[in-house]
Amino acid sequence: MTDIFYENIYYLGPDGSNAQNAMFRFLEICNIKVKNKIPQKTIKSSLDSLINDNNSVCILPIENSIEGIVRETIDNLLKIKDDEIKIRGELSIPIKHLLLSKSNDINTINKIISHPQALAQCSNYLYKNFKNAEIKEVSSTSYAAQKVSNENDKTIAAIANETSAKIFKLNILSSDINDEKDNQTRFYILGRQELNKTIKRKTSIIFSTKNESGALCEVLKIFSKHNINLTYIDSRPSKKKLGEYLFFIEMDGFEIDEKINIALNEIKTYVDFMKVLGSFSIYK
Amino acid sequence: MTDIFYENIYYLGPDGSNAQNAMFRFLEICNIKVKNKIPQKTIKSSLDSLINDNNSVCILPIENSIEGIVRETIDNLLKIKDDEIKIRGELSIPIKHLLLSKSNDINTINKIISHPQALAQCSNYLYKNFKNAEIKEVSSTSYAAQKVSNENDKTIAAIANETSAKIFKLNILSSDINDEKDNQTRFYILGRQELNKTIKRKTSIIFSTKNESGALCEVLKIFSKHNINLTYIDSRPSKKKLGEYLFFIEMDGFEIDEKINIALNEIKTYVDFMKVLGSFSIYK
Repeated sequence: MTDIFYENIYYLGPDGSNAQNAMFRFLEICNIKVKNKIPQKTIKSSLDSLINDNNSVCILPIENSIEGIVRETIDNLLKIKDDEIKIRGELSIPIKHLLLSKSNDINTINKIISHPQALAQCSNYLYKNFKNAEIKEVSSTSYAAQKVSNENDKTIAAIANETSAKIFKLNILSSDINDEKDNQTRFYILGRQELNKTIKRKTSIIFSTKNESGALCEVLKIFSKHNINLTYIDSRPSKKKLGEYLFFIEMDGFEIDEKINIALNEIKTYVDFMKVLGSFSIYK
Repeated sequence: MTDIFYENIYYLGPDGSNAQNAMFRFLEICNIKVKNKIPQKTIKSSLDSLINDNNSVCILPIENSIEGIVRETIDNLLKIKDDEIKIRGELSIPIKHLLLSKSNDINTINKIISHPQALAQCSNYLYKNFKNAEIKEVSSTSYAAQKVSNENDKTIAAIANETSAKIFKLNILSSDINDEKDNQTRFYILGRQELNKTIKRKTSIIFSTKNESGALCEVLKIFSKHNINLTYIDSRPSKKKLGEYLFFIEMDGFEIDEKINIALNEIKTYVDFMKVLGSFSIYK
């Protein structure tokens, strides 16, 4: 693999976020050097920064194994008008929740703060161990850890990851407290340039079907006929009318593979809009 | 239509919520009398209350035309073990956002609070008119209105609906501020008893396919072969492993219609789990 140099990489901050962890892993795996690692507050601002920048990449969450697809990512990818910006890679990282506090005694805790998704993903643990504790939602897991670190209160704990424990110097009162043990988040890496290629690749498309009953089925039949394995299918509202949808599909293979090329041509009969979001490498 | 009597109806509160509006509309359309209208804090607690109660109904949001499916509803419907509890009806209501304040001069406003979805749905309006205002997320639109009503501060406004304006005696500074004008939310009515039947009906199912490439396509082909119109298709993570999914499908027609009956039998070859969430009437 050759080294690649970029000016900036944009990711969802703040320090200690899962997106920051994914970013470090991506830079390492792909032998990428960047001048600046720039945290962003939203998915939209991450993409906007990339659009206004010529030699950069951004990394965005696309799917969590418990919560499902990240709708904000799909909805914003759809709005990109710059055809050079494509999905160039994907990477999954395990999500492990820990209970963090300034206290080193779990029995002192009567208030727990975290992001709503993290709280939801630990709800059995919380129900069993903290039935009477006050539970409070905050904007991110890393912000929860920061808040616990800033307050001189040994009754409060945050649910956050190991990086946050290190950054904010908190004690780990309990590890791996997710209700479902296989909790992973998958990220897309977006940019103008191709990245190092892996053998296994995927292609993501989004389309709307012509207003005919069964049009989606016709599209799926075409992929089936060419033995193309669909790895994900989801619908998003058109945002125009209740009952009108766009479909997001991921498939194994590259856009320029013969069978995918043929299939994408054949489905044109049944779709009235189609966009290839990218054909990309899968990093492990 | 005959009158129907129930002990309780459960809905997502608090006072002034869109779910409360939908509930009033449902009771009116279906000639239903209930003893108690009981607001709930979560979708899960609404369903739990219904499960522990023999002669009651509950109303839950299932889809918004901008945001898409309400995942918490699907995930909780899947967990119901009581086979008598089914979806018995659906109802859509328009969602209209207003800017509400104690002030009657829009120029005094420099802080706006609401539920994150409502803020997202008015983002163009906010960008154009309140570029420098502080925007703060709270847990619901009706709570935002209540908070504005409780504070003696003419610089703060809430985004909420007309019912909230009335309940909390706030001035309407701006109406219909949604970026997309056709904003609707669709609700399911759940219970143990059938409701008054409408001519147009739908059936909702959830299933996982056997681990074979193309199994989803085979399922869709069966519906297509029997000319069954699918009105919605969505995937949810199995929550066990990234890349394993459940599929949620809505179709026109009733479970006992011959063609649907046949199709639901035929798809058994390709699914390893299938549940009919309900066959129900559509109220307008």
